[in-house]
Amino acid sequence: MILETKEFGGISTETFLANWMGHRALTRKVIAAFPEKELFEFSIGGMRPFANICIELINIAEDGMNGILSGKWKGFEETAEIKSLLSNKDKNAFLEKWDQVTEHINAIWPLLGSDHFNKVDQAFGAYENTNLGTLQYAYDNEIHHRGQGYVYLRALNIEPPFFWDRY
Amino acid sequence: MILETKEFGGISTETFLANWMGHRALTRKVIAAFPEKELFEFSIGGMRPFANICIELINIAEDGMNGILSGKWKGFEETAEIKSLLSNKDKNAFLEKWDQVTEHINAIWPLLGSDHFNKVDQAFGAYENTNLGTLQYAYDNEIHHRGQGYVYLRALNIEPPFFWDRY
Repeated sequence: MILETKEFGGISTETFLANWMGHRALTRKVIAAFPEKELFEFSIGGMRPFANICIELINIAEDGMNGILSGKWKGFEETAEIKSLLSNKDKNAFLEKWDQVTEHINAIWPLLGSDHFNKVDQAFGAYENTNLGTLQYAYDNEIHHRGQGYVYLRALNIEPPFFWDRY
Repeated sequence: MILETKEFGGISTETFLANWMGHRALTRKVIAAFPEKELFEFSIGGMRPFANICIELINIAEDGMNGILSGKWKGFEETAEIKSLLSNKDKNAFLEKWDQVTEHINAIWPLLGSDHFNKVDQAFGAYENTNLGTLQYAYDNEIHHRGQGYVYLRALNIEPPFFWDRY
């Protein structure tokens, strides 16, 4: 049973998805704001370049949606596709992958019901949580790491997009 | 009408509060991880020092809870208390203020019902949203800025707390 937010006094899964999509649109703008070389190479204090950080977000979102839908989870692995995205250092190809994952989320979401969202599972074979809790973690983690990308951009003397610019 | 998360298939306001409190506990650890001088003075790329960033989080949380409860909103102003927190550069006093705001949120929350959460208002006299949407913005904004604090700490060669350490 999925109720409207108004009846519930909480955040419906539809609202959660809309919020997440807003954040994904903003993260895409942050990726696009990097010069190509710096996207793949610039870092501060021994941290990962922003592209490598975004690969984490891509893996969590893509494998997470598959795991929640199927109930079958695997740990993270650096696939040939990911290796190639990081070694080719092609910003357009990277943005294309980002968009594919966005489409993947939007394609799977309508297939999920409250049984999926409320199920307690070992996400990625390791982290016990409700699936909605796992999605919340993914959402929070994206905002967290994107905030780091803002500092990289500022350090590169590039103005990042506004935090509210999620369209 | 407030339903259990399980019935709803969404995020109840109780779960939202628990998630926010977890994040506030983590943000407190990030503040505490800064050396006192650097908390108030260190910055990257012309950004604000982390204390000044946290003042934004403090204002949004404190004034936001007051506005949602009372329906009366005011714009942000740098009060004598805030000025003094920033000029005294006393980390313990700063953490004490953080804790007071945490208590303030926890004191007001039980007074809020779905009428408060669903009400559309001009938050801080400027931003039209449901009050729950305003709270979601505050939540997201805290994660965003705390992520920036992580980069500051790494640049200072200090290991930040784990992202999942929200206790």
